[in-house]
Amino acid sequence: MRFGCAWYPEHWPRQRWAEDLRLMRDCGMNTVRIGEFAWSRMEPVDGRFALDWLGEAIDLAASFGIDSVLCTPSATPPAWLTSAHPEVLAVRADGRPEVHGMRCHYRPGSPLYRWFCKRINSALAERFGQHPAVLGWQIDNEHWQRSHDPDTLARFAEWCRARYGSLDALNDAWSASYWSQEYSDWSQLHAPPGSPNPGLRLAWHRFSTALTAEFQAGQVQTLRERIAQRQWITHNFHPHDDLDRAGLVDGLDFASWDAYAVDGPSFDPAQLAVEVERIRSLTPSRKVWIMETQPGSVNWKGTSNPTMQPGELRAAAWHMAAHGAEAVLYWQWRSAPGGQEQYHGTVVAQDGHPRPHYTEIARIGEEFKRLTTLLDQSAPVHPVAVIDRWADRFAIKHQRHHHQFDPAAHVRSWYAAVQRQGLSADLVERLGDQRPWSVVIAPQVHLADQPTIDRLRAFVIGGGHLLIGPRSCFKDDENALLAQRQPGPLSDLAGAQADDFYALETPVPLGGELGEGTASIFAERIGQVEREVAVWARYGQGHGWLAGQPAIIHRPTGKGSLTWCACWPDQELQRRLIARISRLAGIESSLIPPDGVTIVHRRGESGSFRVFINHTAQPQQVELGAVATERLSGTTASNLVLAPWDVAVVG
Amino acid sequence: MRFGCAWYPEHWPRQRWAEDLRLMRDCGMNTVRIGEFAWSRMEPVDGRFALDWLGEAIDLAASFGIDSVLCTPSATPPAWLTSAHPEVLAVRADGRPEVHGMRCHYRPGSPLYRWFCKRINSALAERFGQHPAVLGWQIDNEHWQRSHDPDTLARFAEWCRARYGSLDALNDAWSASYWSQEYSDWSQLHAPPGSPNPGLRLAWHRFSTALTAEFQAGQVQTLRERIAQRQWITHNFHPHDDLDRAGLVDGLDFASWDAYAVDGPSFDPAQLAVEVERIRSLTPSRKVWIMETQPGSVNWKGTSNPTMQPGELRAAAWHMAAHGAEAVLYWQWRSAPGGQEQYHGTVVAQDGHPRPHYTEIARIGEEFKRLTTLLDQSAPVHPVAVIDRWADRFAIKHQRHHHQFDPAAHVRSWYAAVQRQGLSADLVERLGDQRPWSVVIAPQVHLADQPTIDRLRAFVIGGGHLLIGPRSCFKDDENALLAQRQPGPLSDLAGAQADDFYALETPVPLGGELGEGTASIFAERIGQVEREVAVWARYGQGHGWLAGQPAIIHRPTGKGSLTWCACWPDQELQRRLIARISRLAGIESSLIPPDGVTIVHRRGESGSFRVFINHTAQPQQVELGAVATERLSGTTASNLVLAPWDVAVVG
Amino acid sequence: MRFGCAWYPEHWPRQRWAEDLRLMRDCGMNTVRIGEFAWSRMEPVDGRFALDWLGEAIDLAASFGIDSVLCTPSATPPAWLTSAHPEVLAVRADGRPEVHGMRCHYRPGSPLYRWFCKRINSALAERFGQHPAVLGWQIDNEHWQRSHDPDTLARFAEWCRARYGSLDALNDAWSASYWSQEYSDWSQLHAPPGSPNPGLRLAWHRFSTALTAEFQAGQVQTLRERIAQRQWITHNFHPHDDLDRAGLVDGLDFASWDAYAVDGPSFDPAQLAVEVERIRSLTPSRKVWIMETQPGSVNWKGTSNPTMQPGELRAAAWHMAAHGAEAVLYWQWRSAPGGQEQYHGTVVAQDGHPRPHYTEIARIGEEFKRLTTLLDQSAPVHPVAVIDRWADRFAIKHQRHHHQFDPAAHVRSWYAAVQRQGLSADLVERLGDQRPWSVVIAPQVHLADQPTIDRLRAFVIGGGHLLIGPRSCFKDDENALLAQRQPGPLSDLAGAQADDFYALETPVPLGGELGEGTASIFAERIGQVEREVAVWARYGQGHGWLAGQPAIIHRPTGKGSLTWCACWPDQELQRRLIARISRLAGIESSLIPPDGVTIVHRRGESGSFRVFINHTAQPQQVELGAVATERLSGTTASNLVLAPWDVAVVG
Repeated sequence: MRFGCAWYPEHWPRQRWAEDLRLMRDCGMNTVRIGEFAWSRMEPVDGRFALDWLGEAIDLAASFGIDSVLCTPSATPPAWLTSAHPEVLAVRADGRPEVHGMRCHYRPGSPLYRWFCKRINSALAERFGQHPAVLGWQIDNEHWQRSHDPDTLARFAEWCRARYGSLDALNDAWSASYWSQEYSDWSQLHAPPGSPNPGLRLAWHRFSTALTAEFQAGQVQTLRERIAQRQWITHNFHPHDDLDRAGLVDGLDFASWDAYAVDGPSFDPAQLAVEVERIRSLTPSRKVWIMETQPGSVNWKGTSNPTMQPGELRAAAWHMAAHGAEAVLYWQWRSAPGGQEQYHGTVVAQDGHPRPHYTEIARIGEEFKRLTTLLDQSAPVHPVAVIDRWADRFAIKHQRHHHQFDPAAHVRSWYAAVQRQGLSADLVERLGDQRPWSVVIAPQVHLADQPTIDRLRAFVIGGGHLLIGPRSCFKDDENALLAQRQPGPLSDLAGAQADDFYALETPVPLGGELGEGTASIFAERIGQVEREVAVWARYGQGHGWLAGQPAIIHRPTGKGSLTWCACWPDQELQRRLIARISRLAGIESSLIPPDGVTIVHRRGESGSFRVFINHTAQPQQVELGAVATERLSGTTASNLVLAPWDVAVVG
Repeated sequence: MRFGCAWYPEHWPRQRWAEDLRLMRDCGMNTVRIGEFAWSRMEPVDGRFALDWLGEAIDLAASFGIDSVLCTPSATPPAWLTSAHPEVLAVRADGRPEVHGMRCHYRPGSPLYRWFCKRINSALAERFGQHPAVLGWQIDNEHWQRSHDPDTLARFAEWCRARYGSLDALNDAWSASYWSQEYSDWSQLHAPPGSPNPGLRLAWHRFSTALTAEFQAGQVQTLRERIAQRQWITHNFHPHDDLDRAGLVDGLDFASWDAYAVDGPSFDPAQLAVEVERIRSLTPSRKVWIMETQPGSVNWKGTSNPTMQPGELRAAAWHMAAHGAEAVLYWQWRSAPGGQEQYHGTVVAQDGHPRPHYTEIARIGEEFKRLTTLLDQSAPVHPVAVIDRWADRFAIKHQRHHHQFDPAAHVRSWYAAVQRQGLSADLVERLGDQRPWSVVIAPQVHLADQPTIDRLRAFVIGGGHLLIGPRSCFKDDENALLAQRQPGPLSDLAGAQADDFYALETPVPLGGELGEGTASIFAERIGQVEREVAVWARYGQGHGWLAGQPAIIHRPTGKGSLTWCACWPDQELQRRLIARISRLAGIESSLIPPDGVTIVHRRGESGSFRVFINHTAQPQQVELGAVATERLSGTTASNLVLAPWDVAVVG
Repeated sequence: MRFGCAWYPEHWPRQRWAEDLRLMRDCGMNTVRIGEFAWSRMEPVDGRFALDWLGEAIDLAASFGIDSVLCTPSATPPAWLTSAHPEVLAVRADGRPEVHGMRCHYRPGSPLYRWFCKRINSALAERFGQHPAVLGWQIDNEHWQRSHDPDTLARFAEWCRARYGSLDALNDAWSASYWSQEYSDWSQLHAPPGSPNPGLRLAWHRFSTALTAEFQAGQVQTLRERIAQRQWITHNFHPHDDLDRAGLVDGLDFASWDAYAVDGPSFDPAQLAVEVERIRSLTPSRKVWIMETQPGSVNWKGTSNPTMQPGELRAAAWHMAAHGAEAVLYWQWRSAPGGQEQYHGTVVAQDGHPRPHYTEIARIGEEFKRLTTLLDQSAPVHPVAVIDRWADRFAIKHQRHHHQFDPAAHVRSWYAAVQRQGLSADLVERLGDQRPWSVVIAPQVHLADQPTIDRLRAFVIGGGHLLIGPRSCFKDDENALLAQRQPGPLSDLAGAQADDFYALETPVPLGGELGEGTASIFAERIGQVEREVAVWARYGQGHGWLAGQPAIIHRPTGKGSLTWCACWPDQELQRRLIARISRLAGIESSLIPPDGVTIVHRRGESGSFRVFINHTAQPQQVELGAVATERLSGTTASNLVLAPWDVAVVG
């Protein structure tokens, strides 16, 4: 288990370094991420490299037992570079060029910029590629680059030509006869304007992803040719979903995540689990690092930047570790005197002394160290998988129909229901050839590409239990409506299709054998159902077109089944639905935890155990059913008592 | 009575057309609008026309008994045109050029663009101008074009020179000595910046209207020279009030309206009546078509896009027909696979099968067909007129003083009060020589141009009963303050003038012989009143400057009278005020309907009858006073029972 | 005491002037401000001056006993100037040039623009510099000019070179190693982008201030060389804090203020006092004019523009006069027919007749005239000073951490607490050598520059009682974090330092010897306190990191003391804290007025008296303790009864 922080030695006088490293070691840290934005110090003058200070920092850290993750500095080109070559700076959608002083403000497609990146990366790799204390490399920082400059637009036209082959095919894919949008020459293509064609918008999104992937691939190659095999390469993704992460991992050993409580004062346990699991499944290694997380508050929220309450940092760290994170690194170690993020939370304050939560961080460090074997030699075991694709999120996000249909919140609501049932789930882009789950939830497989459909059908026909949500299979892979109603190519397995769909001004009651509940935000009206279909819930009175119609239907198929939840139900009804399907699939969830308590089962060489986390400010009790050992405290009991934000490792 | 939809055959394979037309015919449709955005299919290559497909579509429709309205395609120039001639694209207020893929994004003043429009329109008119199944033509789509390019700015200077004659006159009209704005050369004129001179702003608004009117006039001429006399020409206006519609109808046979529930989940019965009546009065023909209306939901609302409840489509269609609409066309027939409006409501779904509300639409179609003679040979008869001018709305909208003083909502509030009194009203730009109304409401005749004032004075002196609202005659026709207080040149008829006016933070009580009520948002303090003036309401306590002062005053003038309501009262007080004036004018309104029920009286060769519509989700009863026949059901009763959203045609 | 208005004779025909001046005289006015935006009338053609009309207006006013303040017209260059020389127009942050028709839209750094200003100002000064009826001059209007043009950016680089000496020093001051922002050439410097480095942002703010100061200094010089010594020079500042006013007064005889109720329907008595006192202390003369204030409503509020209730204008005028204003001038006299501010409140309406509040204004005029000696020969005497610096406000405003931490509101809350204790306070940029106060409140001395720290230390050590608030001494003068925790260099005097600080989602209870209360928005956790420190308040339960920790501490130092309030308490607790410190300092505040009543003590040759103002809509009573004379009414009583918005001058 790796534990550490982002350290920027370039902000501090050399004589301070040892004290910082001592404080890191004392709170159990064994890893620093380093060099991320330091290009101006690595190459202060065009072509003149200055890497000695970096070597000294790495060596000094190693002398404290702290290994380094080294970053390529491409997110922040130096002023000498951008002032001599302003054509490497991105152009925004409104036509204004980016200026020096920001991050990730370059054109990822610029050959010149790639040349400069290759030169500095080569120097870094040659110098540190064999360094024993360098664990691996991070490429750039939190990809989100897009540019609207003419060269990039020309690349977009090339990309379209390669994807569609002909303008006829492109016009057809984008339904370009709509509003006379048909293109008669490749040079007419442009980036999306304010309210663009959905086909164009998705294509531009994919192109922007591909351009950054190409930019990253060049960096990976530069490193691979120079670094030791044991050094790995990763990238740290972040909560904004501007690019499709699934298209940005080729060549990486694993993907990393920057975990911040974006939507509220605390981490949401479903959101955090979804994020960690989603990133973990991006590469075959099924590894994930938390490359950044907040020690206390952040500084960039529009309203206020509250801190984590005592215990919250520990709950979050253990939650991420339970879900597979092999490292938890805080951002950042110490407040830099200047720069854009003076108010961001840190481990030690501007004066170099620990903040109050240092003690809690030290406790996490101690626990991770003590249980490192248990964690390192096990992995989460989830009986359920949730399918979650950025392309679906992207398509829904820009055409929500109801503004509260946030596709990320929709996925999260299903994950939270899984957690309330005492279970946990993998988050996957697609079903692979191996399908270790008997229950798969596909809350919003919106773009019905053929491989996805084939795999879902194979899963059901092969005996799996599939739950699909509203808006399923509404469009094809080019963001065009299918000439079928939802759930399109799954309709035969569902035994029904949608008559229509509605944005809901007010919640609509649900009733039936799953009990009472409500549907909100969005609902589909299921038409005629086939004979073998069981109606598990119907809409009640309140919406004239929905009243009395099926809302959740279930159709068995041999050993498997397809269940279609045609609306967004409340969380308790979601939980009951998952419980029902899980029972059909033979999944035992003997433990229904109190609200706010999550359970993750891990298994491996180090044994089988469960991690219980109380994500609430109140104490909680869990009846284990049998006497068991809690590994952190070493105590034994059948009734687990969790203090506020407490963690228990049982089994 | 025409009933139909917008049909885009160019989106679908030819073999599908017949099935769509059959489904249209089966729900009672007899009209399609066609060709609106199809330029890229009509002229796929510069100068090469391809109109056979259009002819085939029109012919096939005719074979199903469906006539066509044909559109000039100028709203959406093809990519070959805008890429070869980017100078035809509009420039936005922020200096950025528009890009391909939008609608109405051209420069209406561009001679080159007009040349291209003339060429395609000529080809269309020559091909279809004598076609027996083509009823008429729609020019372009929903005018709102404005451009800030240098050529348009030069045209603006020319327009100003023609309007004002000299810079001295312009500087004087715009009070340009304010902030040293005085122009010393025509080339110094520019479009309004962020917070402009009101005179400049109104002039730019009028110029933009005139430029589009000129653009439209060119298209009308091209068509007129080529089409049969029985084919008419119209334009479809839409709810956004960017341009002055009264300036955009020259040369049209009648104006059309695109009716959408912009402000709420349902149509507001006052808003819809105001819109239909306003458009109807734009041309001497007093005809209006509903060229578009929503079958279910729309897709462009910021919050959510709820559908119409069962019955609402029927209530809205009959409401519009009662108010004079000679056609109701749904937008659109079927969801196109791609394009910007995938989520908009349609009659049949993406798979080509009817949506649930198809049955309701078919009922409307059947009813319209059955009662077509009754409707076609009658017209609405309104005892009241409301004066409503876009120039007034424009001036107030940009200087509201209280942000809730939405001038459209203000007009609507008075119309709703008329409806609550069981009456209905015409909406007119001005009083003509014939004045068939004994009561005229002028809620906000704000810009006191001389002809308007002359006509209002003549109306009162000739025995009419005029009700004026707050902000009346506050400015001259150049958006400059009059050197008189409200109601300016009507003060002698009113017998008083305003001491001052106030934005109201909180409502102020009203009391007097009209009963108790409240005034909100805006109130004028009426000063000394002349002897013959009756004070119908006074402000109560709460606002120091208003307390005890007259709020509504009435002054008889021979057989007529002028009533000045110097504030925005609540709706019930508005109704009582209208009731009082109507009684004076001898208007009988024996029937005060329940809230949410509207009554429109129609008369003509087919007789005299009233259309009752229940715009609520609750059943309503209306006591007719005498036994009468309901034409839709054929039943007879003296007590009308209306189901939710129900319609009755009585008499 | 000066009383008057802004008069724009250029808007009106000459034959109207006498009537306006008569109406002014009749309501007690003795002063007009004139010529402010009249450049296009003063110099209608490049180099051809037309000042006769202005001379006639000044002379005619003088004949009514009304003196003039004359303005340089540089805020509004004529169209002939900006169209011939568009390079004098400012460029906005988004790169778009400003256009003609606005105010203050020029580049203050443009040598060409300065040349034009010098020419017109010379002509004005030569013509009117000896005029007996011209009291003095106002430079430009409400400075806020900033420009992003290339010339200004080059000036910024020069300014930085002068300030920092070397790029190394600049990079160090701005912590530019953060995100590789380090500059290697002066030409790389640029204006702040969207989310800039705090060091760059503050430097740009200071540079923009300096550039405008230089622009103003040129105008001052032009005038000084030509005007009589008795004519003074001022500038009218306004409520928006875009530039640092403390850097904009060099060369002025005194600063003026444009007093508007920006944040609510009425003037806030604390806000208004803070503003007047803040401007008054800007120059050694300790004079301040209210160059503009609203007669009734304004026209630029986003929501609504309510008027002042009867009596409010009088309360506000007396409040400003009590706090040292030597003049109160209304903006403006009469509504201009056109221009951007048609709806702004005026003294007489668009028709040239008085508005209802004219009577109240006449009462103020009469009272000011009657008590002019009393006012002219006295000045406010404040036992307390509040330190308030724009640089602190600027730094906090752009990094609030909690969006409700408005630095202006924070200062205001402390001033309001002083008022509730029956006291009043000076507002100062810094402590001078003379320190006439025994209590000094420094709510947010955020940027710890050495002179400020030195003076604060000297004050405490010299026996003063200093109260500091949260966020004190958090940063250095370059907006970089100190390597010390709050209160940095004052920690030894405080006897403690902050462990950490927190944005508060919800209020936190406070308790201790000051009684119960709450802290909101922002709180610092005070760590270990030294032995001699008294803990006056502690945080209660609710926030895990704060519970039980000191919140307000007090440390005596010889005869003086330092009190640290580490949070933003409720107003009653603020009052109790100030009462406690005042008692220690020997300040008597025998009179605790009812909420909403303020007391200002004035003293001078004309004697010693107190001004009581009731800022509420309810009557209020104040027990004076002894019989005293009320000067306005001439009555005598020991119990003062104040009607709503009433004023009393006692003693």
